[in-house]
Amino acid sequence: MSDGPTGIVMMNLGGPKTLDDVNPFLRALFEDREIIQLPLQKWLGPFIADRRTKKIQQHYQEIGGGSPILAWTEEQGRGMVERLDRLSPATAPHKFYVAFRYIEPTSETALKQMAADGVTRAVAFTQYPQFSCSTTGSSLNELWRAARRVGLADRFTWSVLDRWPTHPGFIDAMAETVRQGLAKFAPEDQDDVVIVFSAHSLPLDVIDRGDAYPAEIGASVHEVMERLGYGHEYLISYQSDVGPVRWLGASTEKVLVELGAKKRTNVLVVGIAFTSDHIETLHELDIEYGEVAHEAGITNFHRAPALNGMPEFQDALADLVAGHLADGVACTPNYGFRCPGCVNPQCRNVLKPVAPYKRTAVTVSPKNAQYPSR
Amino acid sequence: MSDGPTGIVMMNLGGPKTLDDVNPFLRALFEDREIIQLPLQKWLGPFIADRRTKKIQQHYQEIGGGSPILAWTEEQGRGMVERLDRLSPATAPHKFYVAFRYIEPTSETALKQMAADGVTRAVAFTQYPQFSCSTTGSSLNELWRAARRVGLADRFTWSVLDRWPTHPGFIDAMAETVRQGLAKFAPEDQDDVVIVFSAHSLPLDVIDRGDAYPAEIGASVHEVMERLGYGHEYLISYQSDVGPVRWLGASTEKVLVELGAKKRTNVLVVGIAFTSDHIETLHELDIEYGEVAHEAGITNFHRAPALNGMPEFQDALADLVAGHLADGVACTPNYGFRCPGCVNPQCRNVLKPVAPYKRTAVTVSPKNAQYPSR
Repeated sequence: MSDGPTGIVMMNLGGPKTLDDVNPFLRALFEDREIIQLPLQKWLGPFIADRRTKKIQQHYQEIGGGSPILAWTEEQGRGMVERLDRLSPATAPHKFYVAFRYIEPTSETALKQMAADGVTRAVAFTQYPQFSCSTTGSSLNELWRAARRVGLADRFTWSVLDRWPTHPGFIDAMAETVRQGLAKFAPEDQDDVVIVFSAHSLPLDVIDRGDAYPAEIGASVHEVMERLGYGHEYLISYQSDVGPVRWLGASTEKVLVELGAKKRTNVLVVGIAFTSDHIETLHELDIEYGEVAHEAGITNFHRAPALNGMPEFQDALADLVAGHLADGVACTPNYGFRCPGCVNPQCRNVLKPVAPYKRTAVTVSPKNAQYPSR
Repeated sequence: MSDGPTGIVMMNLGGPKTLDDVNPFLRALFEDREIIQLPLQKWLGPFIADRRTKKIQQHYQEIGGGSPILAWTEEQGRGMVERLDRLSPATAPHKFYVAFRYIEPTSETALKQMAADGVTRAVAFTQYPQFSCSTTGSSLNELWRAARRVGLADRFTWSVLDRWPTHPGFIDAMAETVRQGLAKFAPEDQDDVVIVFSAHSLPLDVIDRGDAYPAEIGASVHEVMERLGYGHEYLISYQSDVGPVRWLGASTEKVLVELGAKKRTNVLVVGIAFTSDHIETLHELDIEYGEVAHEAGITNFHRAPALNGMPEFQDALADLVAGHLADGVACTPNYGFRCPGCVNPQCRNVLKPVAPYKRTAVTVSPKNAQYPSR
């Protein structure tokens, strides 16, 4: 049916594999105007990246010298395509390609390999379950730009699997990680455990533009708690805020201090927006917040394992793609719907889409003219 | 086999029935330290209330001279208890009592009537589907205080139905109101409609303490959209923010202006946190935002009807209470779980609970001493 293999592009932030990769990773991150808007960004971005490099290298040193996100994504991808070939023989063979936003393998690398492999039908599959313009949106914008840069804008027919916050297989797998996390507590403590679902925060300016992220985080957590019979106290909080602007709260770090002050000694933290271990689970949650929790008097602080190599999660990934391919749509209706406050004319495109889709008209005001360009 | 009727206390904000009720309503609202903390509140609260009275009276004048929320709540209550008597004969007869937070019938009135009717088993049933300390939390705190004030603290055995954001019957009814809203557009426009789910906003300080509200709004909306097959573009925004502090966004009003600027001409607004029409649907959404939408170029602006007298919603209310009575629990696990940043020692109580429940320990710091008292 299809010409060549069906290419599944697994898009994620990525992370430095070695300590030498930390500086280029940070430079790419701080130069991304779709995530961070700085004055004099071309100069200030690298400056901030360089200043933070040593500290972040130290963090990576403490988690074993690099990010495991590529290894996990590749394991997930292998499991996914193996299942997909069985689930969807009409679109087989399936090949996966990792496209990280700020580090190799980048979108350019993925696209070139897809061309070499003879792919013509491709799915851009975000590995962020909940949609945000800062994560999935930025990765997709970069994917289309990269395709143009390497002269492959016409090569592939695309569809986009842009969000899956309540996919039943994903929720089942998440609920299983929470059960595994709860099992780390002594049997007599398990009823007392507070579950803190922690997600990466966003600046409030992004939220105020109409970003879907907090609503989709809420939907994911509700489904996971439903699977668990609402049997525990729980809340959602947000981690990793930096800099002077106001971010979406409650802050995970502050929540831990406050729970300690309320004499809660059993706390399980769950990364609800991550599918693999990386610096924000292994260092921020385990080491930094582990220390915060310890000092606050939370004697039993554990983290639910990330989905990582869990076979049930590979089942979910394969089911998601098989369903998407069978639907034949270009994307969800909401992907084409630019945030009401969007000022980025590049947003919400699909390059050479497999099916028609509607994209909100672009409004260009003088304010937009400065943002972003590449 | 309860002694006397089972009392179902339907708790809500309430609204002035007549123009003369506007001032006492506003005074009660602005004196509530659980919602608004003002310096010199006992003086400044009434001052602000008095200054706003004329404008708010004008708004009520424009919607027919008063709030219909009591009439709708009574109709919903009648439908609910009639169904409950059939669904749960073991706890029959059931009687409903309206307890508004800032206007008659207040908690005191409800409690006295319950005593007169011989009620001993009572359910405090919030009419806010999604939990917030500012709404359901404040109403419950007031209910327990009122019981003590009128000498009825020992009279009733209580349980609390504290949230129901994804109850299937509620979601079905909400999805039906959205369908009815979509039917207001011309057939050829229906695919183009953007659905704006609007909920009352909260100050960010409340969110940062760990309030569950935005997550539960997200969960409700996701379920409604699932019922509708995700067939439309949609987003969540927040209305009714006032004053100088920063509130949770995106702002409904701003979203409408921005959608207009993006040449979206078909917009359906849906009150996802309201179950009856009141000033914020009939005036703010229909009249004020209707004007905003018109000026922004949204030529087809409609609102989905509120649940009001819809029989399916009365089915949902009865099903909720019947399930709750059968479970025999005092509340959800999360009701006992005070927000990590909570500074209100009164929060999350259940007076004379029907079953054991756990409440997070109170931490009293010097900062707490000033907040709130009554």
